[in-house]
Amino acid sequence: MADYTFFTNPMSRGQIARWALHEVGADYETELVDWESKPEALMRANPIGKVPTLVHHDGDHIHVISEAAAICHYLGEMHPERGFLPEHHEKADYYRMLFFAAGPVEQAVTSKAMGWEVADEHTGMAGFGTFDRAMDTLETLLSDRDYVCGDRFTMADVYVGSQCAWGLDFGTMPKRDVFARYAERVTSRDACREARAIDMDLIAQSQAND
Amino acid sequence: MADYTFFTNPMSRGQIARWALHEVGADYETELVDWESKPEALMRANPIGKVPTLVHHDGDHIHVISEAAAICHYLGEMHPERGFLPEHHEKADYYRMLFFAAGPVEQAVTSKAMGWEVADEHTGMAGFGTFDRAMDTLETLLSDRDYVCGDRFTMADVYVGSQCAWGLDFGTMPKRDVFARYAERVTSRDACREARAIDMDLIAQSQAND
Repeated sequence: MADYTFFTNPMSRGQIARWALHEVGADYETELVDWESKPEALMRANPIGKVPTLVHHDGDHIHVISEAAAICHYLGEMHPERGFLPEHHEKADYYRMLFFAAGPVEQAVTSKAMGWEVADEHTGMAGFGTFDRAMDTLETLLSDRDYVCGDRFTMADVYVGSQCAWGLDFGTMPKRDVFARYAERVTSRDACREARAIDMDLIAQSQAND
Repeated sequence: MADYTFFTNPMSRGQIARWALHEVGADYETELVDWESKPEALMRANPIGKVPTLVHHDGDHIHVISEAAAICHYLGEMHPERGFLPEHHEKADYYRMLFFAAGPVEQAVTSKAMGWEVADEHTGMAGFGTFDRAMDTLETLLSDRDYVCGDRFTMADVYVGSQCAWGLDFGTMPKRDVFARYAERVTSRDACREARAIDMDLIAQSQAND
């Protein structure tokens, strides 16, 4: 049995988790999840049946992990030899950005996609303030560096880079130079290309079968 | 100078960060932030002026960290002697829950507070699915345990516990037994009571001055 069972659908945030699996060189097997009929093994592991869900067969233990950002960081933790975890003085940037992208940025992008507007008097209530403020902040945080932690890649870049690349592809984030350069830099990595090729193949196969 | 400068407003998610500071016994000084006129030192540290923002004076380094969940975890990392970080086999639960609470739960609660509804055909696009699904999931994850990692307190409980306690207090989360018992258990800790007393005093002072 592989170390990880990876429940995913190629047209989902599972793409982020697959990239992370390839970055750490994980031994994993894929279980494809159809939106209509979710596999029993997934529902046993994660009763909400959300993808991506990763099951880690860790010796005598079985661990279940979901949430794309959590999966990226967890894989970094399980494969410290890859060197993709933050060093002591990188930790503030690493965790701040990972949670900023998984919280306010995700929320701002979803709200925009749904057509939800934050009334002026409620910008304090929404953790992301407004869509523009969330985007300006992300731009500021990325503007003086090549990667989340400065000049080297860490697992935070898998998640933040995916947010930027998807946001630009789907038009849910503004086309700013800082975002475009950063997305290009991180998604040109071998692990990202490998993972993407697998998901693109799966999407093509599924469309051929429709 | 104290190890940490803590920019906060007592009526904000800064309450979560103060609890975290007290859990690790951090040496910190508070800089109160008025919504109308934000201190220059805060704007230099964090151009969006969001609270809570923590500035860590770490020897020759100055680190800035924001996002309440990130602050909780970061303080655990900086004070490992407190034993509030996850052990190897606790990591899946710890990170999964921390990101689930900071992402989908926060988003579901904000959306409900704003009166935003997820159309049936868009539940896949919103990372939280629907409000009810996010609440059911949180209930399932907490139902077989006293703390996020099972039977002992970790920094994840400061954040997840705050979400539950606030959600119940403000009526933005349903009054389910699992949430109520968990919130009661974690907020009865000494560090939470100490931190809360400080913020309640600050709120009372500010109201007396109005």
